Amino acid sequence: MGLVETKSLRFAGPPRKLLLTSGRRLGPVSLAYETYGVLNNERSNAILVCHALSGDAHAAGINGEGQQGWWEAMIGSGKAFDTNKWFIICSNVIGGCKGSTGPFSVNLQTKKPYALEFPVITIADMVEAQRRLINYLGIERLFCVVGGSMGGMQVLQWVSSYPERVHSAIPIAAAWRHPPQQIAFNEVIRQAIMADPAWRKGSYYGLGQPKKGLAIARMIGHITFMSDQSMEEKFSRKLKNGDYSFEFTDDFEVDGYLRYRRDNFVKRFDANSYLYITKAMDYFDLSGENFLSDMKKQTPAFW
Amino acid sequence: MGLVETKSLRFAGPPRKLLLTSGRRLGPVSLAYETYGVLNNERSNAILVCHALSGDAHAAGINGEGQQGWWEAMIGSGKAFDTNKWFIICSNVIGGCKGSTGPFSVNLQTKKPYALEFPVITIADMVEAQRRLINYLGIERLFCVVGGSMGGMQVLQWVSSYPERVHSAIPIAAAWRHPPQQIAFNEVIRQAIMADPAWRKGSYYGLGQPKKGLAIARMIGHITFMSDQSMEEKFSRKLKNGDYSFEFTDDFEVDGYLRYRRDNFVKRFDANSYLYITKAMDYFDLSGENFLSDMKKQTPAFW
Repeated sequence: MGLVETKSLRFAGPPRKLLLTSGRRLGPVSLAYETYGVLNNERSNAILVCHALSGDAHAAGINGEGQQGWWEAMIGSGKAFDTNKWFIICSNVIGGCKGSTGPFSVNLQTKKPYALEFPVITIADMVEAQRRLINYLGIERLFCVVGGSMGGMQVLQWVSSYPERVHSAIPIAAAWRHPPQQIAFNEVIRQAIMADPAWRKGSYYGLGQPKKGLAIARMIGHITFMSDQSMEEKFSRKLKNGDYSFEFTDDFEVDGYLRYRRDNFVKRFDANSYLYITKAMDYFDLSGENFLSDMKKQTPAFW
Repeated sequence: MGLVETKSLRFAGPPRKLLLTSGRRLGPVSLAYETYGVLNNERSNAILVCHALSGDAHAAGINGEGQQGWWEAMIGSGKAFDTNKWFIICSNVIGGCKGSTGPFSVNLQTKKPYALEFPVITIADMVEAQRRLINYLGIERLFCVVGGSMGGMQVLQWVSSYPERVHSAIPIAAAWRHPPQQIAFNEVIRQAIMADPAWRKGSYYGLGQPKKGLAIARMIGHITFMSDQSMEEKFSRKLKNGDYSFEFTDDFEVDGYLRYRRDNFVKRFDANSYLYITKAMDYFDLSGENFLSDMKKQTPAFW
């Protein structure tokens, strides 16, 4: 696909602030997004791709930093999501740290990064921000909304909140709500970040990430991303150096996997975003009709 | 059962040092233990109870600190393990922090607590120390060895290493080896402790526990102690205060469960012991015949 550019949409001015599920307002809001392919004259060929927890707007092609998109295997000429036929849109979620407004963004009222002043958001709030982008692009009805994991939650939320605006939906490896076990893991993930003195109650910007806490958090996450069975198939009890070390180092191959994933993540993801996004996932629950209808009341169309 | 006393057996002098699976020697070694009931003349009514990760020698009765034993429901006059009939023995594992030699014990060579100078031990080493206690008590053959979780691992190890000395065995909720998922959780548990600056590379004695890291570690452990299904039955997605807080506090009942368990544990368990004991569990693997036979070579009978 070649070079792609990440664009940004900004909702400015009080009437366009997002009214969040919590009742708080957020604005101005910037949304980082990319598009691939061409919108047809009928505006009927748009597909919205929703990213997972640690993803971003850069789903395909090579961006200005020379990085390949995270779904390069699926999006492009002749690929499953064929850019000769479809107009593909991907945006970074609000609360994220990849160009859209999140806890590291500057709060215009204080002239400092929001940090924990950023409001707690929900999957519905992420979708509401996406809806404004879709409105801005002049698309009445998406041909498809697709995404995996937290992206799949957004897909389910789209269908639930705006069924009239979605022709088809592909939620992949997603839940309509977290079971208590996953809530428990996410709670420990957040507490691991907050236990790191370098977290400084969220106000660490300019001073360096709470790397150790974020590393523990991410390792917990990575265990939950694989099933017991897939770990058995991939690692079993294989040893890194053929024998027990009798020291507190990585003995098993599975330890090395966690360490690699962790180191990779700590460099590229904001710790506060991890707090906000995991909380949004824990709050997601399509079983509660009251919650759903409340949510709809609180997110009127501003466009 | 009334008041019970915790006794201590000490293996002193070089010939009685424990030769560990690692090849290192440990000594002198103290073992804290309790007994309930009376050993009969034939010495044939002895039952060894093995405790789980965070347990101790105080399995039944009321000790000097007024605490009930951890298996009070099962051990006593007229109970499942009837002290009118059986002579019950329970000892704290080596590597522990409840009276037996562990990382917080004073290393006679340095006159300071071992901390990370303490050797990495195995379940087989724990059992070897128990075997010396059984020898000391003059018991040739145990009527039964019983224990749950890590206690069950010790039971399996007894049967595997000393089948001639065990008449019957009751391993409860135990594995003959950890799958990679459990190894991964234990690795993160250890890293959570070691990531806490208060851990000070293990040399925190006299300066206070690495409470925050230990708290994260224990919460991870507690998630793995329950199945997804039992968490669903016990907590589901029940909220503590009826509604979402939209703050980073405990919203769900399952969070409160973790917090309670964690606070309880941090007060009473040594962080370094947690490192050593989880490592021993990860190393436990009865599938490797080589490992088993090596172990037998390295743990000759000193008594």
